[in-house]
Amino acid sequence: MGLLQGRLDSLIGASSGYVESLPKPIHDRVNALRAVQGQHTELETQFHKELYELEKKFSKLYEPLYKRRADIVNGIIEPTPEEIEKGAKIEAEENEPEEGEQEKSGIKEESSEGAEAKNEAAESKAAGNTAKGIPEFWSTALQNHPRLSDLITERDTEALKFLTNISLQYLDGGDAEQQLGFKLIFEFSENPFFENSQLVKTYYYTLTDDPGNMTFHKAEGTEIKWKPDHDLTVTTETKKQRHKATNRTRVIKRTVPAETFFSFFDTITEEQLAESPEMPERVEAEYDLGEEFKEQIIPHAIDWFTGKALSRALSESEFDDEYYDGGFDDEDFEDGEDDNSDGSSDEVLSRSAQNEQPPQCKQQ
Amino acid sequence: MGLLQGRLDSLIGASSGYVESLPKPIHDRVNALRAVQGQHTELETQFHKELYELEKKFSKLYEPLYKRRADIVNGIIEPTPEEIEKGAKIEAEENEPEEGEQEKSGIKEESSEGAEAKNEAAESKAAGNTAKGIPEFWSTALQNHPRLSDLITERDTEALKFLTNISLQYLDGGDAEQQLGFKLIFEFSENPFFENSQLVKTYYYTLTDDPGNMTFHKAEGTEIKWKPDHDLTVTTETKKQRHKATNRTRVIKRTVPAETFFSFFDTITEEQLAESPEMPERVEAEYDLGEEFKEQIIPHAIDWFTGKALSRALSESEFDDEYYDGGFDDEDFEDGEDDNSDGSSDEVLSRSAQNEQPPQCKQQ
Repeated sequence: MGLLQGRLDSLIGASSGYVESLPKPIHDRVNALRAVQGQHTELETQFHKELYELEKKFSKLYEPLYKRRADIVNGIIEPTPEEIEKGAKIEAEENEPEEGEQEKSGIKEESSEGAEAKNEAAESKAAGNTAKGIPEFWSTALQNHPRLSDLITERDTEALKFLTNISLQYLDGGDAEQQLGFKLIFEFSENPFFENSQLVKTYYYTLTDDPGNMTFHKAEGTEIKWKPDHDLTVTTETKKQRHKATNRTRVIKRTVPAETFFSFFDTITEEQLAESPEMPERVEAEYDLGEEFKEQIIPHAIDWFTGKALSRALSESEFDDEYYDGGFDDEDFEDGEDDNSDGSSDEVLSRSAQNEQPPQCKQQ
Repeated sequence: MGLLQGRLDSLIGASSGYVESLPKPIHDRVNALRAVQGQHTELETQFHKELYELEKKFSKLYEPLYKRRADIVNGIIEPTPEEIEKGAKIEAEENEPEEGEQEKSGIKEESSEGAEAKNEAAESKAAGNTAKGIPEFWSTALQNHPRLSDLITERDTEALKFLTNISLQYLDGGDAEQQLGFKLIFEFSENPFFENSQLVKTYYYTLTDDPGNMTFHKAEGTEIKWKPDHDLTVTTETKKQRHKATNRTRVIKRTVPAETFFSFFDTITEEQLAESPEMPERVEAEYDLGEEFKEQIIPHAIDWFTGKALSRALSESEFDDEYYDGGFDDEDFEDGEDDNSDGSSDEVLSRSAQNEQPPQCKQQ
């Protein structure tokens, strides 16, 4: 960014000096083009409105399919024999190794983890005949998404097993305030973690007249009503303190912020955005993640569940390292700064430590 | 990419093993979802067709504005007083420093290069009253685009001064073969470099039924008819060879490939794409560059000319280092491998060496 800013400074200097110093007839023509561009911007704004309406229209067309998916996932309906047969054909096609991929799978030997997974699967097989729907459908789909699997801690995984659906809903838009945007609706079954049956994240856009583009405006999240001792946004640190004189130990508990996927439901206000004109990385990551749910996960959830979506994304080079890195910065937690100066020995037991496994572990 | 591939291998293994080992009733439901997804894909394909038509429709609406811009740029018409006045107001708004930017401009002092530029500008001021249109409009706009300014060599700059317009034209699409795509049309006035008055790059897409997305298919470029000794895709290396025995020198000339913006008009065939299933960086860069012309440069050329577009792009963090880096790899030219083994001393004079200034130099 430093390099770019440097270039920008030199460019803005050079450019604005350049334009200002042009002979008047040429300068006038440049200004005329600015006026022509103003008309272009009006059309661009109109384009973005129509694009929004097109997306809304298709969102309605997709709805019955998402409803059917949710009903099958949650065991509310059973699929028809035709659907099963058609899907089995698609599965067979997907599993046919393509040219080039054949070599790859030739190299790969079944790892011991793979064998373990199969044993687990065999165990679940017995239970499967009575299980409803597709257990852990959404949590598996999210875990197979590289950016999300980096955000989801082991503790989150337990809570996400109760996720029964994710859906998209466009805001009405078109009113006087041009309130455009969309809601991501996460539905949960009764669970030990929080009271809410729905967690909603709403993204708001405005159509700016500057580049005629939509601009991310603010994002509102549902406040999560955590059940006692199940708040995933904190961890409890337990410190043992030994008093030098008496030699007695006491246990001090305190909560510290923890990384969790559920911070996705934090609200980002206009004020927060206004205070950071350079749009901090966190906000950009939030925005990207919203787009990812909207464009990838909700429309193609089954392909994330089976892993097909990731292999497609990789083969199309649709994501690069930046995509993979996630975007959420590791926050530097103040790690148990010692504010008792009596020289006692501390032992910090952080529950969040167990979450700091390399992301690969989550796939097994 | 290595890391990702590693994860992908483990994921595909884990996932496909996982799905296959699911109890039959659950496996059947997974397959039913694959069938539901098939219906979704059909709708997605329809969405992309309608989006393409929407873009085409607006392309037609923008056309009169682009025509007027081209006419003003090339001195075919003079702007109206109303346009000039309206544009002057926009200029005044653009030059009002925003909060935060004020500080920046306070720090910046006029550099000696800036003063030099002003002197040059003063000289051109006298000529300006007779100049037609806006001289060097397009070459300046392209030079102000970070990715393009990295691709444009000093020799290219001379040729690009004859660029009079860049326009976009959508392919008809909708026919039996679903031939979708667009043409970028570069128009040139009579110039010493090549015979062509138009250089065209055509991008072809297909609507794949896999993710319902458009896929880059092939790209055709106009063959450039270079005038003698003006082919920018090569440089002439001159070697002096001194014969050990006779002590006589002889001069050997040979042409070697040179980096040039004009390689943008190379054709990329389906065969080339098929041979490289991982879509090499070069092809991806070509594709990105086409999108950049389509979405940024043609629609907002005046803002690239004045530098406004770059400052906007930076403030919106719309481009990152990857964007800035360009994408075209530096090709390793074989630099004058010595194949005469008579031990003569060589002096390689490469014309391309003068192009290897840091990109910053191009902005001054």
